[in-house]
Amino acid sequence: MSAKKIKDATQFKKDRMAKTNLFETERFFLDVYGLEPGQSQAPHAHEGADKVYVVLEGQGRIKVGGEVSPVSPGDAVHAPAGVEHSLENPGPARLVALAFMAPHPKHSK
Amino acid sequence: MSAKKIKDATQFKKDRMAKTNLFETERFFLDVYGLEPGQSQAPHAHEGADKVYVVLEGQGRIKVGGEVSPVSPGDAVHAPAGVEHSLENPGPARLVALAFMAPHPKHSK
Repeated sequence: MSAKKIKDATQFKKDRMAKTNLFETERFFLDVYGLEPGQSQAPHAHEGADKVYVVLEGQGRIKVGGEVSPVSPGDAVHAPAGVEHSLENPGPARLVALAFMAPHPKHSK
Repeated sequence: MSAKKIKDATQFKKDRMAKTNLFETERFFLDVYGLEPGQSQAPHAHEGADKVYVVLEGQGRIKVGGEVSPVSPGDAVHAPAGVEHSLENPGPARLVALAFMAPHPKHSK
């Protein structure tokens, strides 16, 4: 079966946010992002694909369409297709978040 | 912004598993499922849509394609399109899990 322990899969990198894929098909991907304090994901948008962040550990800031929300474990945020979004870890702890995207950008229209 | 506290959204019902939608578009939905001890989701399959469960609280059993896995918080399980799957809470605690599906079954081909 395709079952994974998210904690075991989560990675961190010294120089930038680490992305680790958990599952993917043409219809979606589910990644886990690991951000050391001070790391961030640059603002970007995906035409034709929706993203949802689910925060698992740490405290972060998620920006969607120019609006910033402080986020903590148990928060879910939707970044609709075509809307600019970004993720930031101001610290002091590590930030871990799931990123669901549908469809997989390689297959979006 | 479309930001939600998963814990505040989670519901439970006396007679069956409770499903609460967090976000949906034609490309996906993200629901949170609440299962009292003894409740379960009947085996079913979605043609053309992938599902991922992410367990947040409690202990459960997820069956995908005839294989059963015990699951606990931090586990993610992929039920590929067309493959029968189900979720069960043998107890003793409440079970809370995210269910991400892509595309939204109303829009799957």
